[in-house]
Amino acid sequence: MDDRTKVLILFDIYGELLTEKQKTIMDYYYNDDLSLSEIGENAKISRQAIYDTVNKCKKILYKYEKKLHLLKRSKHIKEKKMEIEELLNNIRFDDDDNEIVQSIISKLNDIN
Amino acid sequence: MDDRTKVLILFDIYGELLTEKQKTIMDYYYNDDLSLSEIGENAKISRQAIYDTVNKCKKILYKYEKKLHLLKRSKHIKEKKMEIEELLNNIRFDDDDNEIVQSIISKLNDIN
Repeated sequence: MDDRTKVLILFDIYGELLTEKQKTIMDYYYNDDLSLSEIGENAKISRQAIYDTVNKCKKILYKYEKKLHLLKRSKHIKEKKMEIEELLNNIRFDDDDNEIVQSIISKLNDIN
Repeated sequence: MDDRTKVLILFDIYGELLTEKQKTIMDYYYNDDLSLSEIGENAKISRQAIYDTVNKCKKILYKYEKKLHLLKRSKHIKEKKMEIEELLNNIRFDDDDNEIVQSIISKLNDIN
């Protein structure tokens, strides 16, 4: 996973822990894919200030991941869910049970 | 769930986000069940200072839950897991598939 993708996911997980101003800048930079200069013009602050904010936020997001491991945990859950689905596929169910199996898969998808 | 139990769980989830000093005091108070005076004596600070720290930490923990909802999410996952186990119990498996079902349950327990 490249750094940009990782920061994007971390922002999705921990974004609420940033200030409103930090969130707006990160949102422009990572979700709307604006350049530092464009964000600077919109926000009427220097390109350098935006650059500093983005870097500071990245550090904050990585710090939270180091303490709470939510990205790691989310990957782990995804893996387990896939393994369970695979195991379910290996079982020879009666046709009558098909509906139950579908319910299991639907509930499984509800875990994240 | 009473307030003490809830704070205990929130401390378990978000404790890493507190400072070392805050963690130690919360650990004494919530996990070791020491009184404010006992903690004050151990730490050589006033009972009032301990009281203030505990209250401040509670507010911090509740603030994180309000932003990240990890306790709520953990309850949701627990519910879904129980529902999946119940559904699995409703399926008539062949004896040959018993091992697979046990694997599914084990992987399910690995999600939390």
